[in-house]
Formats: sequence, structure tokens, C-alpha cells
Amino acid sequence: MNRMKNNFHMLPDDFRAAGHKVIDWVADYHAHVEDFRVLSQVKPGEICDGLPDSPPQQGDSVTNILPDIERHVLPGITHWQSPNFYAYFPSNNSGPSILGDLVSSGLGVQGMLWATSPACTEVEMKMLDWLVQMLGLPEHFLNSSKHGGGVIQDSASSATLCALLAAREQATNGQTNEEGCRLPLVCYTSNQAHSHVEKDVKVAGLGRKNLRLIDVDQEFAMRPEALERQIVEDKAAGKIPFFVCATIGTTSSLAIDPIPEIAAICKRHGLWLHVDAAMAGTAALCPEFRWTHNGVELADSYAFNPHKWMYTNFDCTAFWVKDRHALINSLSVVPEYLRNQASEQGEVFDYRDWHVPLGRRFRALKLWFVIRHYGVEGLQHHVRQNVAWAQEFAAWVKADSRFELVAPHPLSLVCFRLKSGDAASEQLLKRANESGKIFISHTKLDGKYVLRFSIGQAKTERHHVEAAWKLISDLADRS
Amino acid sequence: MNRMKNNFHMLPDDFRAAGHKVIDWVADYHAHVEDFRVLSQVKPGEICDGLPDSPPQQGDSVTNILPDIERHVLPGITHWQSPNFYAYFPSNNSGPSILGDLVSSGLGVQGMLWATSPACTEVEMKMLDWLVQMLGLPEHFLNSSKHGGGVIQDSASSATLCALLAAREQATNGQTNEEGCRLPLVCYTSNQAHSHVEKDVKVAGLGRKNLRLIDVDQEFAMRPEALERQIVEDKAAGKIPFFVCATIGTTSSLAIDPIPEIAAICKRHGLWLHVDAAMAGTAALCPEFRWTHNGVELADSYAFNPHKWMYTNFDCTAFWVKDRHALINSLSVVPEYLRNQASEQGEVFDYRDWHVPLGRRFRALKLWFVIRHYGVEGLQHHVRQNVAWAQEFAAWVKADSRFELVAPHPLSLVCFRLKSGDAASEQLLKRANESGKIFISHTKLDGKYVLRFSIGQAKTERHHVEAAWKLISDLADRS
Repeated sequence: MNRMKNNFHMLPDDFRAAGHKVIDWVADYHAHVEDFRVLSQVKPGEICDGLPDSPPQQGDSVTNILPDIERHVLPGITHWQSPNFYAYFPSNNSGPSILGDLVSSGLGVQGMLWATSPACTEVEMKMLDWLVQMLGLPEHFLNSSKHGGGVIQDSASSATLCALLAAREQATNGQTNEEGCRLPLVCYTSNQAHSHVEKDVKVAGLGRKNLRLIDVDQEFAMRPEALERQIVEDKAAGKIPFFVCATIGTTSSLAIDPIPEIAAICKRHGLWLHVDAAMAGTAALCPEFRWTHNGVELADSYAFNPHKWMYTNFDCTAFWVKDRHALINSLSVVPEYLRNQASEQGEVFDYRDWHVPLGRRFRALKLWFVIRHYGVEGLQHHVRQNVAWAQEFAAWVKADSRFELVAPHPLSLVCFRLKSGDAASEQLLKRANESGKIFISHTKLDGKYVLRFSIGQAKTERHHVEAAWKLISDLADRS
Repeated sequence: MNRMKNNFHMLPDDFRAAGHKVIDWVADYHAHVEDFRVLSQVKPGEICDGLPDSPPQQGDSVTNILPDIERHVLPGITHWQSPNFYAYFPSNNSGPSILGDLVSSGLGVQGMLWATSPACTEVEMKMLDWLVQMLGLPEHFLNSSKHGGGVIQDSASSATLCALLAAREQATNGQTNEEGCRLPLVCYTSNQAHSHVEKDVKVAGLGRKNLRLIDVDQEFAMRPEALERQIVEDKAAGKIPFFVCATIGTTSSLAIDPIPEIAAICKRHGLWLHVDAAMAGTAALCPEFRWTHNGVELADSYAFNPHKWMYTNFDCTAFWVKDRHALINSLSVVPEYLRNQASEQGEVFDYRDWHVPLGRRFRALKLWFVIRHYGVEGLQHHVRQNVAWAQEFAAWVKADSRFELVAPHPLSLVCFRLKSGDAASEQLLKRANESGKIFISHTKLDGKYVLRFSIGQAKTERHHVEAAWKLISDLADRS
């Protein structure tokens, strides 16, 4: 074959040259991300319209795509990495994470089985064990423990789904996997839990009506007595309660469900307890915030997202179970073409049996790079700063008679509103976001329209928070 | 804040310098990947043992991690990007894909809603429409069509799951999502279909016993008459047949189910037809191989994996449905904190309602880079070459009286064995893989142990295939 003429692949040295340019582009983007309006202003269809309707027949140089990204993509980007992004929850990246993921892309291995690239499985086992130590999680979650283990999932949605499936099969002795959902299974979460719990319950064939949304207290945390009352009532009605999803850090207000009380109820009635700490899990890096995780040692499974507040690119949800066999039994199917000696001898973890997808990217590398670069101290430092700034912000809100705080704010999220009502608060949000200077999002708490100010982007510094408050405060006069 | 002293983040210029080193490392890896033994030789636990048991307290330079990757990770890598990798199916990366994904990492946006970064949704819409044209798929799959649409999923497993859920809800008028699985639903696939179909059926709460594994013909393709017989039988028994997963390119032998006949049966009996073309879909880039896709215009949904044979890093499964509302209705849950004007007005796609996870990475960029770099011609060229080499390889096998071909080989996979039997064939595979010079995998067909030779890695050239056959041929004398 005439390589020069007929091989369309990029040669290593061309990759090197183009790669340096892309790295420079990313570095420049990060150096200047603060200059962009945070929220994209494009209209529906505008980005689509800027791109050709048909694919190119002939190839082109990768470096020619970069100007097209500037022209056709950036206007449609809402800048999640901007220091002025305070909406939803942070979805961080960081230099070390980007580079760790670049190594993963470069190696291009499939980690579906231990045998298909042992390092992909074993580095992940080690990183998940490191995280157990870093967050002060119970030792029975360690991959090096007798029965437990941890794995990377794509999202908290998928982690909860896997917990639900493991619990479903345990509660029905594997009968659901065999026969389908035949028993009147019932599960529980608070009415403040993330919407993925409802989605997962539907996916698993359990039915939305069999998910009980338990009432919360004035701090938006699940009422344990309401949970137990409902379980008892369901049992009396012939239902089979089997699963509770409790939350450390709800989406709307970062409320913390009382895990010890909930766990005691689960134990009493034989239910699986999953704890979703998607956002707030990272707080447990700091001993002074570990009170948020009281009782986690009583959970059957637990998940948090390094891809939120721990500077690791999406996707990276860390998920642990106390009994890995319950999880594997619910998800394992072994066809002939994947049989191999290491798996048959039971000496290794085959992570494809720990989640829905078969294929797996080497996601542990980005975690390794992040933990190595920051060290535990560096990660703790930034969590502490974010929380401190949120406390300052809350104090400014509290001191301003036009505003009210509407939920506890022990961590990095402050929920507040204008006392003058929903319409004024909504107007304020609209104006703040249209300014292009910040991006905040909203929720409803107790039926009231509430603004959420979530601090956690890597580039945010104290002066950004101060400027954001000044902007909000100024706009409030006009709302 | 004293930035130099207290900010642990990597500054843009440090990222630039470290990034160039990582790019060089990846370029060097690709330049030398052929020199490695293809299959990792480590023992279980060996990679874990090489890493510290505890995370570092203090941070370190990212560039210090690269030597540790050489020392502690590479020995545990099975080199999927080696030209001598012929096992399973290819899981390709390529220069443009790696760089497209690097831009995605750098931007770090969340594409869960159109509003959270419109470009992430709209570039994906456009790329999926390009692929419809590139593969000659029906126009009703286009995002620009009235009812259909396409989306990137993480894997074919997840795509089939979503098709199954859409079909489940359509068959039960949304009742399963509400009440749980109450009706005797039954689904169908061939006994050669990928194991993920069984996994998905279990996940969806339908029960393995309600998945019928339909018999195949001598070419390992589903027998349509056997399918219809089973559907009729199930109906007579009071069951509700609702879903068929047909395969274009089965995992064991790349067998092609007769889609037109299966589609006619699905239409007659009112079943949803999903077509899984995870590996073979890429063949449809070439008009001369589009016969493999006959009848795909009759399917309700279709998926293939650019992350297999189309030089795009995992994860990237392209998934289309004829009726996007059936999909969205089965997966949508809208909490207050995600409400926004664009979504409420129904003018935009919110892709979080098209799959299980909420969060989404900007995966369309790597597809864009790949299609732009290669052009349609470049991609076609490599598919044609791979198929041509597989035909040559098959001819060598056929001409050698010690071997027999055991399945049709119209594309890039050749299934063969030693006539002397299972033990000798298994021994041959073991010796070939232990040589470190190639990696092949096996399956069983008609109960017989079969070697699979799958050509499709980006770096494979004709002389590699020739050398692989010489090795196999030489080792056969000793098996």
C-alpha cells in the first residue's frame, strides 16, 4: 500500500503537531473563559443552521476545525467552567483531569473484563479504595474487603438504578430477573430527592405509583417517622417494601436526610438503603464536614460524583456496595465469547457486571491525575474555601432586608428569594442571567420560587462571589 | 487570596506545558504500540500491588505521573490499538477523535438540556443527521424529520434498553411506567444476539423467561418462520408479544438477520422492531455493503457503534428512533429545577429524556472531528480495505486443508477452526495469544469451539494480516 497516498489515518507526528494546537486552544479557552457571557444567547436551531447539511466527502485538516469551533460552537456554549457559573451544581473539569482523560483516549482500551486490560480494572479498584479513605467511608466498601466494592458509573442516575436492581433481586431471590416484576414491590425516597429516582423506578419496571415520596421537615430533610409509617402501612396492605434512597445533599437545597434514623428503619423492616450524595459527597473530604455523612456506614450502597465538585471531568460517579455479589448477581450474563480463564477462576473483578453498559472507558486515569495533582490537602482546601464563601454570601443575603434565606446552607449552596414574592424573584433571576455576567438557576421550596446560588466552579474566587452579590443586590432594586 | 500560595489549581500556562508533554506521550505510544506484546501478561492483583495503598496528602506535578504510567499501568494494558489486535471487535480511537474529545474535555459543558449548552445538543443533532446520510438510513430517522430522531448513547446495551423501554410503554399505553410490569409481555431475539439483550430484559423488569431466543439457520441468521411461529404460540397462550431485537452483524460471526422478513412479521403482529448493528453498521458507509441493511427502513429503532469500526473513541453509540415521542414519553421526568423557557415551548430537544443518565458529555465533537478529518471517502476506503483483507485471509484458511471456515464472512470477521477439533483449536488460540504477537478471541458456533479473526484496528495493514496468518499457520502444526 502506498501509505502517503492511500492511508487516511493521522500519523503520530501529525497528531503531535495538531495536538499541541488543540492543547493551546484549550489553555487559551481556560485563560479567557471569564470574558464570555456565561449563558449562551442563541435561539433554537441557530447552531444547527450554521453547520453544513451534509457531511464532507473529502477529508480536511483537524486544525481547520478549530476556527469553526470558535465561529459555530462557542456562541452556543453556556460556559460551565466560567468563574461566574453558579447554576445547578458545578460540573467541573481541571487541567489534571483533562490530561488524565487524554491519556485514556490515547490508550483507547476497553475495560469490560479484567482480561481485556487488567490495568483498567485494577487502577479503578485502587482509586475507589483511595476515595473510601479520603471520604472516611466504611471499610466494608473497599474493593480489598471481603464482600464490598466500588466502581465508576456514568452518573448518579445509573448508580441508583444499579442499587435498585441489586435490591430488587435480593428482595425477590432473583425471581424478577427470571420471571419479571410479579410481586408488589414498593420503594421510598423523599419528595426532595433527585428526579432520577423516579426515572430509575420506571426503568426497572416497578411503576411510579410504587415509589413513595416521603414528606420532609422544615429543613427539607426526610421525616423518618413518616417513612416508617408509610412502610408499616404498605406492609399491612400486602405490599413488599424493599428499597429506600436517602439523600445527602438534595438537588434543590442540599438538604441532608437523617441517615442513622432511616438506616435503623431499613434494618428493622429489611429494606436496602442506598445513599445518594452526588453533590455533597465531596464535602466529606474535610473532617469538619463529615457530620453530613453520619450513618453512611449503615447503608447498603452509596454514590457521589467526583464529576461535580471534585475537578474531574464528566462522567465519573463513584458507587459502592456493601455486598458486591448482590450487585453482580443482578447484572451478570456470561456469553461464550467473553469467557476467559481469569474470570472463570473468580480471581478478578469484571466491572461489566457492575452496571448496564458492557463497554468501559479507562475513567480511573482522570481520577488518578486529579488526586495526584491536588493531593488530599489541595482538594480539602478548595472545598473549605467554597463553603466559607457560601457562608459569607448567606450573611450578605441575611443582612439585606429585601431578601430572605429559605433553607439551611451548611455547605456551598445558598437558597434565597426576594421577600416581595415569586414574580419579583423570577424577574431578578431573568435579569441576572440576561446580564451575561453570572448564571444562576432556580427551584421551588414549599411552593415558593427560590433562587439557588451554588459555589463550586474551579475558577471561582472570592472576588467573583462578591461581584455576583453586588450584581444581584443592584438588580433587586429593579425587580 | 494569595494565588501562588493557596490556589492548587493548574494555571493555563502550566496546563499548556504539561499538555504538550502528554500529547507527545500519546503520539509516542501510537508510534510504538506495535512493539508491545498485544495481550497483557500480568497476574491478578499485580497492577493494584504496584500502586500506593493510600492517596497522597500533598499534590504533585502531572508530568511526574507519566513515568508511573509507563511503570505501573502499561504492563497491565492489552493494546487494543495495536495493529495486531484481532480479538472481539475493534474498539478504535484515532488522532482526530482523541483531539475532538480533548476539546470536549476542555469545554467541560453539561448537555443534559438544550438550555444548558445549546451547541452540545445541536451539533449532536447535526452529526446524527450526517450519519443518516452516510449510512443511507431512512429519512424518517433524521432529527430534522417530523417525528424521528437520533442521539448518542454510551453503548449498544443502553440503546437496546431505551428501545425496549419505549416499546414497553407503547405496548402498555404508559401503564408499566405507572403501575409496574403487570402484563405478560414477551420479546424476541435470535440465539446469536448479543448478551446485552438478556441483560436489558432483566433490567426492564420483564424477566429472562419472557425473552425468546429464536433459532437460527445454517448461516446463524434468525429464522423468520421460527419467529412467527413463536409469536403466534405466545399469543395463543395469552401472552403479549411486543418487541423484537434483530441483529445486523452478530457478535459471534457477524451473521445478518433477514430484516425485511422480520419487519413484515413485526408489522403483522404489531411488534416494535429494534435493529442492533453495533459493529456492522459502519459497513453501510459503502454502497456495495448496504445490502446488509436491507429492510432497515422498516425498523422502529436502529443503533450502531462509531466507537467500534469508525475510529471514534468509546463511548459513542448512534441510536435512532422513528417516533421520538415514544422514546421521550417513556423516559421523561421534569422537576422544577430543570424547567426553562426553551423546553417548555417545545422548540428544542432535551437529550436527557432520550436515555437513562441525566448528565451528558459533548460527545458529538469527536464525531465531528472524525468525519471532517477522514471525509466520507476516507472512512469508506478503510472499510473496503478491511473487508478485502478479511476475504484474503478467508481464502488462505480455505486453501489450507488443516482448517475449515465455519460461517459466512462477507465483512471483516472470519470464523474458522482446525478440523482436528475443539482441543486443538483452543490450544492454537492459546499459543497464538501467548506469543504476544497477535491477540485473537473465540466463540462457539453449533457447539464447536471457533477462532474469530476480526480485522478493523486503525493501524492494521495488509502485511500485518499476512504475518498473522503465517503465525497461525505455523502454530497449527504444533496444535
